[in-house]
Amino acid sequence: MADKITSRSADYAQWYTDLVLQSGLAEYSPVRGSMVIKPHGWAIWEEMKSILDKKFKETGHVNASFPLLIPKSFLEQEEGHAEGFAKECAVVTHYRLKTDPDNKGKLMVDPDSQLEEELIIRPTSETIIWNCYKNWIQSYRDLPILINQWANVMRWEMRTRLFLRTSEFHWQEGHTAHATSEEAIAETEQMLHVYADFMETYMAIPVIKGIKTPGERFAGAVETYCVEALMQDGKALQMGTSHFLGQNFAKAFDVTFLTRDNKSEYAWATSWGVSTRMMGALIMVHSDDDGLVLPPKLAPLQVVIVPIFRNEEQLEQIRQKANGIISALKSQGISVKLDDNDQYKPGWKFAEYELKGVPVRLAMGMRDLENGTVEIARRDTKEKSTVDLEGVEDRIIALLETIQHDMYEKALQFRADSTHRVDDWDTFVATLEEKGGFIEAHWDGTEATEQKIKELTKATIRCIPLEGDMTPGKCVYSGAPSQRRVLFAKAY
Amino acid sequence: MADKITSRSADYAQWYTDLVLQSGLAEYSPVRGSMVIKPHGWAIWEEMKSILDKKFKETGHVNASFPLLIPKSFLEQEEGHAEGFAKECAVVTHYRLKTDPDNKGKLMVDPDSQLEEELIIRPTSETIIWNCYKNWIQSYRDLPILINQWANVMRWEMRTRLFLRTSEFHWQEGHTAHATSEEAIAETEQMLHVYADFMETYMAIPVIKGIKTPGERFAGAVETYCVEALMQDGKALQMGTSHFLGQNFAKAFDVTFLTRDNKSEYAWATSWGVSTRMMGALIMVHSDDDGLVLPPKLAPLQVVIVPIFRNEEQLEQIRQKANGIISALKSQGISVKLDDNDQYKPGWKFAEYELKGVPVRLAMGMRDLENGTVEIARRDTKEKSTVDLEGVEDRIIALLETIQHDMYEKALQFRADSTHRVDDWDTFVATLEEKGGFIEAHWDGTEATEQKIKELTKATIRCIPLEGDMTPGKCVYSGAPSQRRVLFAKAY
Repeated sequence: MADKITSRSADYAQWYTDLVLQSGLAEYSPVRGSMVIKPHGWAIWEEMKSILDKKFKETGHVNASFPLLIPKSFLEQEEGHAEGFAKECAVVTHYRLKTDPDNKGKLMVDPDSQLEEELIIRPTSETIIWNCYKNWIQSYRDLPILINQWANVMRWEMRTRLFLRTSEFHWQEGHTAHATSEEAIAETEQMLHVYADFMETYMAIPVIKGIKTPGERFAGAVETYCVEALMQDGKALQMGTSHFLGQNFAKAFDVTFLTRDNKSEYAWATSWGVSTRMMGALIMVHSDDDGLVLPPKLAPLQVVIVPIFRNEEQLEQIRQKANGIISALKSQGISVKLDDNDQYKPGWKFAEYELKGVPVRLAMGMRDLENGTVEIARRDTKEKSTVDLEGVEDRIIALLETIQHDMYEKALQFRADSTHRVDDWDTFVATLEEKGGFIEAHWDGTEATEQKIKELTKATIRCIPLEGDMTPGKCVYSGAPSQRRVLFAKAY
Repeated sequence: MADKITSRSADYAQWYTDLVLQSGLAEYSPVRGSMVIKPHGWAIWEEMKSILDKKFKETGHVNASFPLLIPKSFLEQEEGHAEGFAKECAVVTHYRLKTDPDNKGKLMVDPDSQLEEELIIRPTSETIIWNCYKNWIQSYRDLPILINQWANVMRWEMRTRLFLRTSEFHWQEGHTAHATSEEAIAETEQMLHVYADFMETYMAIPVIKGIKTPGERFAGAVETYCVEALMQDGKALQMGTSHFLGQNFAKAFDVTFLTRDNKSEYAWATSWGVSTRMMGALIMVHSDDDGLVLPPKLAPLQVVIVPIFRNEEQLEQIRQKANGIISALKSQGISVKLDDNDQYKPGWKFAEYELKGVPVRLAMGMRDLENGTVEIARRDTKEKSTVDLEGVEDRIIALLETIQHDMYEKALQFRADSTHRVDDWDTFVATLEEKGGFIEAHWDGTEATEQKIKELTKATIRCIPLEGDMTPGKCVYSGAPSQRRVLFAKAY
């Protein structure tokens, strides 16, 4: 059924696109820059959402919903923010179409429906939310406000890639308000750790936690924290960000509160978000030339049983054995199905479930029934073995855990092998060209050097890691003193 | 804290608005027609979503996500559909703002960013989805397609009311494609029953299932099924619709498939949706002058324990007893919390939880601890009683079931008392004016009569019920023959 996927070695970018299309995750839509997230892709995103949502609630957050459209004047309130987002937004100017009198069957914008003030489809919601918070916050008793929103947002993009960069995308955006700077910074850091924990434990992707350089900060933030991961092609991907916004938005929207001492003070803000972009990372870190490889904890279908049969009678015998396994696994919360469709051959099904990334596949034929065995295959390593039917459920559950663990370890090993400590400029350039990956190098702390390195190599400072080597040294480009190494890479 | 809520008898519309605002469900936003759904309101919507989503999946549906923006030309494809939706849509015409050279600090639409073709924020997604289905459907083997989407949509409204009528609203829209007309009709009816079952079992709202008259059909549908409920002011509210779309959209987007006999045929379609409008019904059917009354199955917080204490030592003793109840209830899946905030008095808390609609409230003071008792109050009837602490968990669980049951029965009784069988025009007019409610009356089946009755009385035909009295008679307005009674009411 599916066309062949281009191999990673032949063309990594094409491999990615082929994989997303062939495995039924998503496709481009006729609206430039927008995509259709198909059922298989959306099911994975739903798994991710549900786990993150639980973590947000466990850390005291509640969900709410703010408007899709933002008045143009709101964007003007915070100067840096406007600068960062005005250039790439969808603008609603009218609220009605009408029949085109000159073109039968065609519609045209009704010029009488022009809005007094244009509305922007939200690129992010700080402005409209802080405009609300103005009314919600009067006293220290109203703080903290810990709200998250799951939403679609839009940032007009000229060059798009499925999941990685689309005009419309889905995300969550947390927006919190606090009485003190310390509390807001603690919140910013807490959410960074929540993200990192989710990515490592569920996505099986090791991440580096750090802070962005001033030049890479979110528009309107005082400090931007981020989590960065390495893809199989040696490029980095920003997995999520958590911003300490200081009092910038409180000042822009005049949000003050009375402290315990009855003084008026501006509230302190954070915002933090992860998006469907994480789907891109999930695909690029783990998958192979045969299709998706999904970590068991995020796989919508964890186990599939493929029967090998010649007739309905044989199928019925297999079905009976399979049903026992299915109910035992389901009672343990494992998602599993028997694919007894008779329109496709087992070989076709094997390829199909490999393409879709189902972590464990069982195959059962008549000889297995006679011998009391079943063939069990793991998607990540493609290993197959024939095992006793007796006790196979426990073996499957253990195998799912093993796969989850091994996938993380494999990605961690890949990152270790692809992380290079570099101390001179020639090696820096050569490493980027020949190997890619993360480069730990000294930087003199200036935006000029950061820009120059980017121009010369396309590498950016992904982050100043929170942990790691804190030894001072000399900038790899300028030779000027450096407080500590930072992390460079070419990035998505 | 909260201002007083206008009583229902004084001004029902104002009561509704006061209630939504005071109980923290939602508020108007600065963007005309849009609302902010606050955490308490969103939590109830999340409960509703999660139950419905499970029911959709149990009936074989999967979720996906289609673009927010729809090209104008898509709306032109299906004539009736365009007619119905073009008049009320937000139109994106540009994709960039820029700094206004004449106004420092202001932004303006960049005229160079005008789109070649205007984009519409989806008012509903039939067009963009059927444009996709064209590529997804080749053969009968690709059918049925059973997809649902949870999304925000926008229909420009001039007169808005929180939840009931807003420009942006949240909903789910199912869009299915089938090989036969019979299968599509069965799907349409199945989803109507899923909706009705949800509303009666979870929302505790009795509904009438029926079909709309041709004049009230969805733009582009062959048949529109609906569920209708009665509010406390005697007005009807359409709770949800399920449309049999025939081959209209398949023809508009040229979606054909090869049948088993190798013939080319257009696919058959359905679409079905319920929205945040249901929140309006939930409020209006059950609530009272003191605030929200929530059915236990949809209450984000089902039980609250209010301690009555003079000092920290007393609170600690109460806390110990309360913790036992809390862990026992939580293990049964009941959501419960102890409100040990010492900034507010118990009386304030009682009023607050009544306002927010928490179904069961416990109060525990020192005398209760001495006597081994606890005070238990139900929100729906305001009944209070003092009971033994021993075994109170089972009592609470039983009480939650009783409340759920009683709320439904009360609404059913109200509807029965407010449904009038009318056979002459004067009584029809008088009943609408004096009593409101549902009127079961004969109708001659013509759109002219339907329109005339609407003009004269503002009552519309809510539906032709699927069940009920099928005896022929004479039209209440024209006297012409009528096949059966239909359901009239003034409606939201």
